[in-house]
Amino acid sequence: MAGGQTKIAIVGAGTIGLSFAALHLTKDPNCKVTIFDTRPDLQQYVDQHLPGYLIDVDHEACLKRLSVVSKLEEAVTDVAIVQEQGPEKLAFKVATWPQIELHAPADALLWSSTSGIPASQQNRDMKDKSRLMVVHPFNPPHIMPILEVVPSPETSQAAVERTLAYWRALGRSPVVVKKECTGFVANRLAFALLREACSLVAQGVVSVEDLDELVQTSMGPRWAVAGPFKSYHAGGGEGGLTNFLEKIGGTTQSCWEASDEDIRKGDINVGKKWQAEVCRQTDEAYRVIDTAERDTKTRKVLEAVGRS
Amino acid sequence: MAGGQTKIAIVGAGTIGLSFAALHLTKDPNCKVTIFDTRPDLQQYVDQHLPGYLIDVDHEACLKRLSVVSKLEEAVTDVAIVQEQGPEKLAFKVATWPQIELHAPADALLWSSTSGIPASQQNRDMKDKSRLMVVHPFNPPHIMPILEVVPSPETSQAAVERTLAYWRALGRSPVVVKKECTGFVANRLAFALLREACSLVAQGVVSVEDLDELVQTSMGPRWAVAGPFKSYHAGGGEGGLTNFLEKIGGTTQSCWEASDEDIRKGDINVGKKWQAEVCRQTDEAYRVIDTAERDTKTRKVLEAVGRS
Repeated sequence: MAGGQTKIAIVGAGTIGLSFAALHLTKDPNCKVTIFDTRPDLQQYVDQHLPGYLIDVDHEACLKRLSVVSKLEEAVTDVAIVQEQGPEKLAFKVATWPQIELHAPADALLWSSTSGIPASQQNRDMKDKSRLMVVHPFNPPHIMPILEVVPSPETSQAAVERTLAYWRALGRSPVVVKKECTGFVANRLAFALLREACSLVAQGVVSVEDLDELVQTSMGPRWAVAGPFKSYHAGGGEGGLTNFLEKIGGTTQSCWEASDEDIRKGDINVGKKWQAEVCRQTDEAYRVIDTAERDTKTRKVLEAVGRS
Repeated sequence: MAGGQTKIAIVGAGTIGLSFAALHLTKDPNCKVTIFDTRPDLQQYVDQHLPGYLIDVDHEACLKRLSVVSKLEEAVTDVAIVQEQGPEKLAFKVATWPQIELHAPADALLWSSTSGIPASQQNRDMKDKSRLMVVHPFNPPHIMPILEVVPSPETSQAAVERTLAYWRALGRSPVVVKKECTGFVANRLAFALLREACSLVAQGVVSVEDLDELVQTSMGPRWAVAGPFKSYHAGGGEGGLTNFLEKIGGTTQSCWEASDEDIRKGDINVGKKWQAEVCRQTDEAYRVIDTAERDTKTRKVLEAVGRS
């Protein structure tokens, strides 16, 4: 694909689809993007919403490389990449991939943006399962650099390598999840911290707003620069993470045990009693969030670490 | 204290003590700081190491406002604040506070930087327990804005308010932890994510380096801008966190249950089998970390969100 004109089909024009379309158009000035969706007002919808995702680029030049189609086969013919973000329903994915397979080139990369349905389930009725994998973004993908690349056991190493090369050429940060697992990695990590946060708020240890302020002024900026292992490795001095766990491991273990007990006592599961108070405090603190302001700030943070 | 010349005693001249001394000297151009420590080479040690913590300020002007003493009573006489970061041993803290009480002014604020020993244990032999509280930094405090303020049940509201006012006047981000709990809040949250990270690496789902890269390009920058509740509140659109949990709660719960099972199966407790592999990968990925580079980048991130 390098140097040439990559053609990409975006299947599903929700917010993730439009964000990905904008990302390709913005980061690769030669690519062509086709958006497919079954909504009757597709052209009007794309015209109205896509420009909001096109940042710091010549809109007209971008939009010249974009087309909008209402037939799936039209979208995927002659493309190098098909990127799917349709409904999060297994039946839809299982039914759609064979359709795509029928009309897309035999070497096209096939990516699903699903946050939870592994490629090994989506590929059930496909003839060639070697090109399908999950490429899971962190919302919104036109801002956030990460892409979780999750191959199924049937995905070929070559298809994974081509996927990584594509994203790296665009300056993004693809990371390989080596085994399919519930929720993949980003959500697993974020939800683990969220559960602890819910538990501490439910116990009255800290307010929702103060907990957010705390994360924004400690772990957030720290982890934007150095992830948890790198951070604790630094915390251990010359002896690194090994030394850290020798010296601080007692505290770490006490925290883990206290968390387990508090989560059990507080029944911190979705739909239980704690949820009302946490949601009430969050509503009261924030009402409606201005995501445009959030995205502008996030881009500044990413620029500060050379990741934009 | 506003407008006047605040005097601060730093008890214990380790890296946290020097970092706090530098923070006060840098952020309040009128304050005077006295460092007390029992090490015999104290003056030489401070002269050698403190300048490394003084960023973007006139070193000489700062150092004129600093003194170094070898007697505790000398350090705390006539100060507005005593900030303690001695050994993390209950016996030391219990023995030290009555000494400080004897020589410090009756209205001095008394802060412990401990990461784990609550004020309600430290204050056992004090006459006036109303002024002692934990003020726990995120390392290093001259860079990271957060301060966890953890009063004991005996701490007065007035002392907490004065503490918050002091830090806010310095442009820092104090957050009140309303109930003493194991590990306070920042470590509880960070260790919850760390445990999940260790579990996923131990299972071979993702490498140490890729997991860090993933956090650095997703949750890190996101949470530098908006903490977890604010983020998921935005993720729920107009219905906020309530809507998010209604729509995505099933996935969240599946992740929590998978995490619980994986942590149980993998016996992710300190000192168990998983640890060797995680430490090996971390050593191999990072060797020795350049914390100066990390701190420079972190300051840029904090500037990007208006927090420096």
